Amino acid sequence: MIGRLNHVAIAVPDLAAAAAQYAGALGADVAPPQDEPAHGVTVVFITLPNTKIELLTPLGDKSPIAGFLEKNPSGGIHHICYEVVDIQAARAKLVAEGARVLGEPRIGAHGKPVIFLHPKDFNGTLIELEQA
Amino acid sequence: MIGRLNHVAIAVPDLAAAAAQYAGALGADVAPPQDEPAHGVTVVFITLPNTKIELLTPLGDKSPIAGFLEKNPSGGIHHICYEVVDIQAARAKLVAEGARVLGEPRIGAHGKPVIFLHPKDFNGTLIELEQA
Repeated sequence: MIGRLNHVAIAVPDLAAAAAQYAGALGADVAPPQDEPAHGVTVVFITLPNTKIELLTPLGDKSPIAGFLEKNPSGGIHHICYEVVDIQAARAKLVAEGARVLGEPRIGAHGKPVIFLHPKDFNGTLIELEQA
Repeated sequence: MIGRLNHVAIAVPDLAAAAAQYAGALGADVAPPQDEPAHGVTVVFITLPNTKIELLTPLGDKSPIAGFLEKNPSGGIHHICYEVVDIQAARAKLVAEGARVLGEPRIGAHGKPVIFLHPKDFNGTLIELEQA
């Protein structure tokens, strides 16, 4: 069912510093920051030859990553995103298997339908599935 | 400098259960477990179309992931691995930039030279660099 690893999302307290580090010390292809007000984050996309890294920092008062950064002030890997062909079919299969899916599919930061899976059911890992 | 994302490593408390979940509920291509006694882990490789996921569980008394699982009993993302062309050049560049590199290059679980970078210097993320 799962296909490509679409991205790894890393929450960071200082987006400019993290972006400069990936562009400088790590020598990666780093894009300018983009505000995603509907998702409560500002994102920097890092393009690797085979996938993407997304550096996230909170935007606004109700950011979904604010709590994570309170618990992990230095930052950390927040989630990984796998691609699926059909988000509704994926959701139905996971629910049938007894996994906790966090809500109905919604439009994610890339303009495509996504769901999130409960980390307690997946080895402490927050998994996003995106209909590619 | 960094190239492909070689793998994402997820530490898990129950390797058989995690492997069964990735093969079943998530429908991925999951290989049989491999003991890596020199690295203190048993590994299950999951092949995605563009990269790999490695499920790790401790092997033996001195596993480098035992402490992580004590702090994260459900498991969690342990590290991400980026490929580089020249591990010595990568190490020298990072040291020159002031980043803490954890020791000299050594032969990693794939039989290739690797170094690890201090998570405190990289947004709370343990980064492995592997000479591809």
